[in-house]
Amino acid sequence: MNLQTYLVTEARFSTHPTVETVEAAIAGGVDVVQLREKATSVRERYDLGRRLREVTRAADVPLIVNDRVDLAAAIDADGVHLGDDDLPVGVAREQLGGDAIIGRSVSTVEAAEEAAAAGADYLGVGAVFATGSKETDPEESEIGLDAVRAIDAAVDIPFVGIGGIDVTNARDVIAAGADGVAVISAITDTDDPEAATRSLRETVVGAGVEQ
Amino acid sequence: MNLQTYLVTEARFSTHPTVETVEAAIAGGVDVVQLREKATSVRERYDLGRRLREVTRAADVPLIVNDRVDLAAAIDADGVHLGDDDLPVGVAREQLGGDAIIGRSVSTVEAAEEAAAAGADYLGVGAVFATGSKETDPEESEIGLDAVRAIDAAVDIPFVGIGGIDVTNARDVIAAGADGVAVISAITDTDDPEAATRSLRETVVGAGVEQ
Ligand code: NI
Repeated sequence: MNLQTYLVTEARFSTHPTVETVEAAIAGGVDVVQLREKATSVRERYDLGRRLREVTRAADVPLIVNDRVDLAAAIDADGVHLGDDDLPVGVAREQLGGDAIIGRSVSTVEAAEEAAAAGADYLGVGAVFATGSKETDPEESEIGLDAVRAIDAAVDIPFVGIGGIDVTNARDVIAAGADGVAVISAITDTDDPEAATRSLRETVVGAGVEQ
Repeated sequence: MNLQTYLVTEARFSTHPTVETVEAAIAGGVDVVQLREKATSVRERYDLGRRLREVTRAADVPLIVNDRVDLAAAIDADGVHLGDDDLPVGVAREQLGGDAIIGRSVSTVEAAEEAAAAGADYLGVGAVFATGSKETDPEESEIGLDAVRAIDAAVDIPFVGIGGIDVTNARDVIAAGADGVAVISAITDTDDPEAATRSLRETVVGAGVEQ
């Protein structure tokens, strides 16, 4: 699974409507799209999700749903991304099946090891940097690149860094061991999400080649 | 399905811990239990729900989960209760199967007819009375007994009244056509939830016999 550039959608932090942003990100080469939209009802996410499913399927880009296993199943997403407050990984696996992509947010080595043991396919590690915005949950504090390196050393499953990452620091996150970077604003809150995605992708790929 | 006394759990409006309240309500003859707990994470509801599943299964009382189809499946609940903001009834039916009990919150005849056509097994109709508390959603205004009568005339599936109902007005709700009453505080926010349930149940059964 290629996680190099991983877009998390949030209409409230977006210059363009989410469907437009996702189409642009796909044109720019994005590898994974996660439907998040924490501020909207699940009914709205269901309607948006069905449109994102069409767009991502046509481009053969995996679509992951944040938090809700039922919503992921309802829109035939490729998987679900879970946090500490959500259903356990094992429950999601049981409901979505062996082929589903199940991600887990972690911020410590211990949590990363637990998630890997529980059968997560990949991790979201963060917040790597302070975001200065409301992108991450209030309780998510900055863990820094040392924590990224420690998690990379501890687990074998792939992971993306998340939190305060953009084209200026993505290289450092990859150099610390991440397989990719997950971003919201660095793609969504730009005039040209396609160019922003392409630029981010080139940075990540370049950093990976250097390693 | 007997909906005469339908308990909706909310720890924040409860005198006792929710498991204790549910055990007492079962001892008092409650017919249905809905796990709501809107203020807690789904992970906490999952842990609580598994305990409620044991308690309700031992008593052969149906357990319904508010909002989340995935949580309902995870704890092997008997069904799910959906509102306007949730996944559509058809999606829940597809995920939970034909034997699941699917409820739908409505406040108008039109919504009641739509929910029945979509395959809901029962309705929650309200808010019948103003609650003066935070039990119902802010946008849920008082619909009154005339609306209850209109919905009773319009649809054939059973329904409970909800919102501001207690032992003093339950008889009026049943007289207006409801098959039962759904309550939070009238059971949870009492010193003796067993006695409160028994008293409410006697009132509802008595009103049904009168009709
Ligand atoms: Ni535009």
